[in-house]
Amino acid sequence: MSKPIVVQICWMPEEITQRLADAGTIELRRWSADEEDKKEHTLSAPREWLLEHVRGAHALLCTPVCKVDEDIMEAAGSSLKVISTMSVGFEHIDVDAAKKRGIRIGYTPDVLSNAVADLSLVLCLNVMRHVMESYTVVKQGNWHNVPWTPMTYTGPALEGKVVGFIGFGSIAQALVRKLMAFRPAQILYRTSSSRPFDWHDKYFRHLAQDDLLQCYYQQHQRLPVPVDNEPDLQALAQKCDVIFIIANLTPSTKHMINTSFLQTMKKSAYLINVGRGPIIDTEALVEALRENWIAGAGLDVVEGEPFVSKGHPLLAPDMLDKVMLLSHIASATIESRRGMAKWTAQNAFGALGLRDDGPPEEMPSELKF
Amino acid sequence: MSKPIVVQICWMPEEITQRLADAGTIELRRWSADEEDKKEHTLSAPREWLLEHVRGAHALLCTPVCKVDEDIMEAAGSSLKVISTMSVGFEHIDVDAAKKRGIRIGYTPDVLSNAVADLSLVLCLNVMRHVMESYTVVKQGNWHNVPWTPMTYTGPALEGKVVGFIGFGSIAQALVRKLMAFRPAQILYRTSSSRPFDWHDKYFRHLAQDDLLQCYYQQHQRLPVPVDNEPDLQALAQKCDVIFIIANLTPSTKHMINTSFLQTMKKSAYLINVGRGPIIDTEALVEALRENWIAGAGLDVVEGEPFVSKGHPLLAPDMLDKVMLLSHIASATIESRRGMAKWTAQNAFGALGLRDDGPPEEMPSELKF
Repeated sequence: MSKPIVVQICWMPEEITQRLADAGTIELRRWSADEEDKKEHTLSAPREWLLEHVRGAHALLCTPVCKVDEDIMEAAGSSLKVISTMSVGFEHIDVDAAKKRGIRIGYTPDVLSNAVADLSLVLCLNVMRHVMESYTVVKQGNWHNVPWTPMTYTGPALEGKVVGFIGFGSIAQALVRKLMAFRPAQILYRTSSSRPFDWHDKYFRHLAQDDLLQCYYQQHQRLPVPVDNEPDLQALAQKCDVIFIIANLTPSTKHMINTSFLQTMKKSAYLINVGRGPIIDTEALVEALRENWIAGAGLDVVEGEPFVSKGHPLLAPDMLDKVMLLSHIASATIESRRGMAKWTAQNAFGALGLRDDGPPEEMPSELKF
Repeated sequence: MSKPIVVQICWMPEEITQRLADAGTIELRRWSADEEDKKEHTLSAPREWLLEHVRGAHALLCTPVCKVDEDIMEAAGSSLKVISTMSVGFEHIDVDAAKKRGIRIGYTPDVLSNAVADLSLVLCLNVMRHVMESYTVVKQGNWHNVPWTPMTYTGPALEGKVVGFIGFGSIAQALVRKLMAFRPAQILYRTSSSRPFDWHDKYFRHLAQDDLLQCYYQQHQRLPVPVDNEPDLQALAQKCDVIFIIANLTPSTKHMINTSFLQTMKKSAYLINVGRGPIIDTEALVEALRENWIAGAGLDVVEGEPFVSKGHPLLAPDMLDKVMLLSHIASATIESRRGMAKWTAQNAFGALGLRDDGPPEEMPSELKF
C-alpha cells in the first residue's frame, strides 16, 4: 500500500509532522515560504501551489490563514479523508462542502483555553487600570510632567464587581477559575440557549474539574463567587461591570453587540472581546466610547482584521485611554501553540488510522456536524 | 479646649477630612493647588506655605510627594502628635526625627495589597505575552504587515513555571492567592531573614485567611502549588522563571538585583519590580536585557523616577519588546485609594483620640519603630 499523503498548506512548527515524515509513515508535502512570502501577513501557499499539490491528498493540515473551499477539496479528490486545522475557529473551511463529501474536520479547542483566558484578563486589567496611558506617558518622557495626586491613573478593581460572559465554554470557564481569587461579586453568563448553572452538568466540567473549586464546593455546596445564567442579553448588559465576549461567530452572534446593547451597559462598564471581531458592531462601539456610554474596551479581535490602518477610529488619539486593541494574540503561548500543533497532527493521523508512538488513535478533537 | 489642628499638606480626596471638618471636631488647614501648581508633578504645598501653616498642628496628613523633615516638625512644635501618610512607603518622612520627638507615624499597608498584586500580574503577563509589541504594531497601522505564523507573538505561560518572590508580605501573598489558579510548578520566596513556610505561622495569614486555600489545606494538608522558602538569593535567581520584587527599599535591598544576580537568572526568565526602583541596579538591568541574560522586565518603579527622559536606556527601541515601564501606578485603584484615604484620616484621628462615627479609635495602622 502506498503511503498516505499529508499536505501541509500553511507554515507550521516543523515538529508537527517531521517525526512521522522521518519515520516514513506518510508522504509529506509541505509548502514552505520563500523570502518574498514572508513579507505577507497571510503566510500560506498560493492558490496555484495548492491546486497542484493537494491532488491525491489524504489529509490537509492548515491554519486560519488558508481558505479551504470546495475547489480545494475537489482538487484533492476522493482520497481526502480529513482537514485538520490548527485553530479553534473553522470559518476558513467550507464545512458544508466537507460534510457533503464525508471529509472529517479536526480542530484544536480546549488546549488553548488557559492562554486565551490569561490574555482576556490582561486586556481587562490593562484597560481598567489605565496601563496603556501610563505606559505611553512614560515612553514619551512625560512621567515627571504629569501631576501626581492620589487619584491619578486610578481605575476600578475587579473585587466586588459583576462579571458577565457572552459564551461560556472552556475558555470562559478557565477564566472564571482564575477570577475566583479576585472575588468579583457575581459571575453571569449567557449561552446560545438557556442553561442554568448546575455543578453536576458536564457542560460546566471545566469548573468542576478544578481541584480547588471541587474542594470548596464539596464543603459548602456552592462556589466562593456565585455563577448564574442570565439568558436575557439586555439584562446582562444592564447588570455587568465587565463583559467578556468569548463566543464563536455565527449568524446569531454577528453584531450582537450593537447600539442598543452598548446603550444599556453601565457607563462605568468595560467590554472585552477575545471571540471574533464581527460580534461587535465597530461603528456602534466607537460611538459608545466617544459618547462615554461605556468606560472602555479591550479587544484582541476586530472587524476587518488584520487591515486596521493608522486612521482607524479605534486608534484615534481620544481613544488612547479607552481602547486596547491587540493583533489576535490571545492563544499565543508557546505551550498552547505546541499543544495545538500536536493535536493538529494527531487529528490527521487519527482520521487516517495511523499510529505515532502507540496504538492507532482516534481523532482527539473532531468537529461534530 | 480648642479644637485639634489637622494640616493636610498635599492634595487628597476631599472626603478624607471634610466630614470631620464639617462636624466641627477639628480645625482643618488644607493646602489647595492653584492652576499653576497643577502643572507640577509633585502636587504639594510649597515650603513657605508649609512652614507657616504647620505651626501648632496636632496632625499632618501627607502623601509621598511631600517631604516631611525635621524642620517641618520643628515648625509645627510640641503640639504635633502624629504624621499620617497616605502610602505604604515612608521614605519621605524623617522617621528618626519623629521618633526622637515622640511623634507617631500612621501609614496604609494591606489596604492596597490586591491593587498592587493585580498590577504585578498584569506587568508579568504583558511582558511574557508580547502585549506591548502587539499593541504597538496595531497602533502603527502595521497589523497586516506582520506575517502571521502559529508562533508569532508567542510567549510562555505561567503554568508549570517556578515563580519567585523577593519580599513576601501581604502584597506578595495576595498575588500568590491569585496565582494558584494559574498552576505554576512552585512558589519560592525570600524574606529578610530565613522563614520556612508554615501554614500556621501568622506571617502567612494572608494566604491562610483565603477561604479557598483554607478549604484545600484542611483536606490535603498542603497547598495546590508548593510554597517554599529559598533564603539564598543566588539560588532563587537560578531556579525561577519569573521573579517578583515586592520589597521595601532598605540599605540591604538597595541594588540587591545587580550584575551577579542577573547573570545567574535563566535566559528565559522575567523580572518584575513593583517594590522600589533602587532595588534594581538600572545599568546592570539594561545590560542584562541588551545581552539577553534574561528575557524581559516589567517595572512599575525605577531609579530616579519620575525623571525618566525619552532617551532613557530602558526606553530605547531595542527594549520595546523586553521592558514595560509604568509610572508607579500599582496601587492605583479607586477602591484602594479610598481605603488608603480613610485609613490616613483614621490614623490621624486615632492618634488624637478623636471619634468619627463611633467610639474613639486607636490608629488602625501605626509604624512600629
